[in-house]
Amino acid sequence: MFDPISALKDFIRHPSVSADPAFREGMHGARDFIAGLLGRIGFAVEIVPTPLHPVILAERTGPAEWPHVIIYGHYDVQPADPLNLWTTPAFLPEVRGDRLYGRGAADNKGPLLTHVAAVARLLERRPDLPLRITFMIEGEEEIGSPSFPGFLAAHAERLRKADFVLLSDTGSPREDQIVITCGLRGLVLFDLEVTGARTDLHSGLHGGVLRNPIQALAELCASLHDADGRVNVPGFYDDVLDVHAWEREQLARFGQSAEEYRAFLGIPAFYTAKGFTPFEATRFLPTLEFNGIGGGYQGEGTKTVIPSKAFAKISCRLVANQTPEKIRALLYETIAQRMPKDVTFRLVDQHSGQPYVVVPPDRSNTPAGQSPVLASAFRAADAAITEVFGRAPLYLREGGSVPIIADIKRVLGLDSVMMGLFLPEDNLHAPDESFNLNVMRKGMAASERILEGVAVGGRRS
Amino acid sequence: MFDPISALKDFIRHPSVSADPAFREGMHGARDFIAGLLGRIGFAVEIVPTPLHPVILAERTGPAEWPHVIIYGHYDVQPADPLNLWTTPAFLPEVRGDRLYGRGAADNKGPLLTHVAAVARLLERRPDLPLRITFMIEGEEEIGSPSFPGFLAAHAERLRKADFVLLSDTGSPREDQIVITCGLRGLVLFDLEVTGARTDLHSGLHGGVLRNPIQALAELCASLHDADGRVNVPGFYDDVLDVHAWEREQLARFGQSAEEYRAFLGIPAFYTAKGFTPFEATRFLPTLEFNGIGGGYQGEGTKTVIPSKAFAKISCRLVANQTPEKIRALLYETIAQRMPKDVTFRLVDQHSGQPYVVVPPDRSNTPAGQSPVLASAFRAADAAITEVFGRAPLYLREGGSVPIIADIKRVLGLDSVMMGLFLPEDNLHAPDESFNLNVMRKGMAASERILEGVAVGGRRS
Repeated sequence: MFDPISALKDFIRHPSVSADPAFREGMHGARDFIAGLLGRIGFAVEIVPTPLHPVILAERTGPAEWPHVIIYGHYDVQPADPLNLWTTPAFLPEVRGDRLYGRGAADNKGPLLTHVAAVARLLERRPDLPLRITFMIEGEEEIGSPSFPGFLAAHAERLRKADFVLLSDTGSPREDQIVITCGLRGLVLFDLEVTGARTDLHSGLHGGVLRNPIQALAELCASLHDADGRVNVPGFYDDVLDVHAWEREQLARFGQSAEEYRAFLGIPAFYTAKGFTPFEATRFLPTLEFNGIGGGYQGEGTKTVIPSKAFAKISCRLVANQTPEKIRALLYETIAQRMPKDVTFRLVDQHSGQPYVVVPPDRSNTPAGQSPVLASAFRAADAAITEVFGRAPLYLREGGSVPIIADIKRVLGLDSVMMGLFLPEDNLHAPDESFNLNVMRKGMAASERILEGVAVGGRRS
Repeated sequence: MFDPISALKDFIRHPSVSADPAFREGMHGARDFIAGLLGRIGFAVEIVPTPLHPVILAERTGPAEWPHVIIYGHYDVQPADPLNLWTTPAFLPEVRGDRLYGRGAADNKGPLLTHVAAVARLLERRPDLPLRITFMIEGEEEIGSPSFPGFLAAHAERLRKADFVLLSDTGSPREDQIVITCGLRGLVLFDLEVTGARTDLHSGLHGGVLRNPIQALAELCASLHDADGRVNVPGFYDDVLDVHAWEREQLARFGQSAEEYRAFLGIPAFYTAKGFTPFEATRFLPTLEFNGIGGGYQGEGTKTVIPSKAFAKISCRLVANQTPEKIRALLYETIAQRMPKDVTFRLVDQHSGQPYVVVPPDRSNTPAGQSPVLASAFRAADAAITEVFGRAPLYLREGGSVPIIADIKRVLGLDSVMMGLFLPEDNLHAPDESFNLNVMRKGMAASERILEGVAVGGRRS
């Protein structure tokens, strides 16, 4: 059995930023590292090429009557900038107190290694465990998994015979309150680029005769929300469904006060859609966010220029029953209508992803004919989490997106059991990302019990 | 006599970007280059230290009855970014056709060298010329000349005995229509930084609960203009004076149509304050421009982040009778009132400069008691330009700012004769800056005649 913490440090040392071609070597290193580890604990490892970053498939096969779990994870990470805000370098992992710091520590290298370590320990203890396990680890999650649907389609024949997917790429509010995520938001991303004059201009010689593209962009961006915190795009909320009573009841047990949340974020006040608490807003409502903006001079001091171009990077989160295609069309139409006519603009598609919802067993609205192995996995997870973490899990939708969960459902027909292992203070996608090592240890114990429970339950459960 | 074009190439090769401390060596090189050149043509050169970049003072002294001209220029240049938009590297000067390309070619190394070469030729021809000449060449013009007022005050005793200032740091519309600039806009610059959460946030986990600082910044920026192209800040236009009839008459002879100007800028339509032509708007009205904006992720692909901070770099151009102090106060008050209360913000002062106006002689509203040497310089310039360029100069206010012209008036009591030598297609402050070598040659001839005319006119003229 390997040491999971030192393995996690080794994993983080490979800077696997999938968004930036400069990190090709880091991607390669991270892939080789995790593939090698899975090989050493007895898995048959395959590196499956895709148009961009390969997928790792690692299998423990067995008789068809054994239940079959796919464990999903990703070896790529977000860019680490702004680098100057990290206490220690993003790709030089360091343990401080109960935490391991480094880009990818919590998203997703730590949680993924938690399951790998659980499997290693379980198979050491029970080499004859009647459970088929397939690790499916991709390298494009942080850029929207462009190759993953194609990969799934190409391997659907073999993968769709599995029973369910287990993963930890979602969050929980506290170390003693684990969430099993039952829904994820979808995504639509695009860039908006505005052009004024054909070149940068001297702001004195030409200031006062043309609309600055930064002004046009600001006017457009300012028009996309209303004073009540809602997205101001006609039709944006049309397909949003009402929330189930059991979901509101679960969320009420969330255990964080709005004031605690506000203090955690460090904001003077919330800006939430009217009629929704902050906790509801992130889970039950779609959003439109500005991920980046740029144009003109951004350096030291001043440059008296009217820039030729300015751009914004915009993303929407979607909830169940919305589709990226429709939302993208609504947005593009609204932008085209509102953009001042004395500038030109361009919309550049970035990736998108469908929202996802699964209903845990024994809820009043559990879909008929839910897979018995899926139901047994949910029950094993409930029992394992309750015992290891000391409190029953909450079943909640989450504000984040793992678009491939919807792809897996659509292409393979499989649902996912998502055990949330990262915490709000883990700083995902931000400087000083870290993973709580207590959560890692407990997560390993829980994962081990879940897998053992599913194996014992068999395929008929 | 040195070769002016090869000297200009050597001058440009020193990357003297005053805004960026990384270019310390380029600043040093440019300073040494021009100081050396002035020494070789017989001037007594002094490098006067300031808190930032030194000023070069080079003198040709003589009896007190000789007229005394100060020739102003600056050896610093704008930053060259975006570097990728230059056809050839910014600091590797290249002649293509009638133009010399490189950062600073037109602003201000070319025009400055035009006067240096004219002086060199004139003194070769008339070594006994009864004219005192002082070159005063600073290195902070592109960053607002922070040290210059202090320099002027420290050397006022000696400099205020001069009769007038001659310079070329303004523009003309065409090679055959030189403008003598009679007014310059003032400047107020500042940065606006908006902060949302204490750190960058995952846009899925937290999207929908807080106002994105990019949104707050966009809303604020969008509020600063109205639909009629006017700056939407209460009191902004209060001190703007009516335009003189002779100024409108001069501008009417400007010789470029609005359509030509629009095509030159490459914009679909103008966005000009109601009631003003584009040519009037840049000269007679104040403006508010966004010189830069930034925040969040600006790299390749996507990063689903809610940034902690976003900023804009904002500048205003002021016209005669406005003051930077009052306009800055109005802006800061307006921003504080309008900024959403669920974010925090910070205003960072950058430099500022007073507007300037001089009335050429023989206008109905020429100020009483105008210096006879100044009047003779204006008349010599009118004659020289008419003869060399083939057309009488126009007397116009310009949209640009040379704040030190107002400082010179305030501290030394001297007015300036500004012969515009750069053209719209010279791409000042932008990629592919260049200087028209025909203008350089004619400018040299004109400068030579102006200086000779002032010398001949004597101090009583």
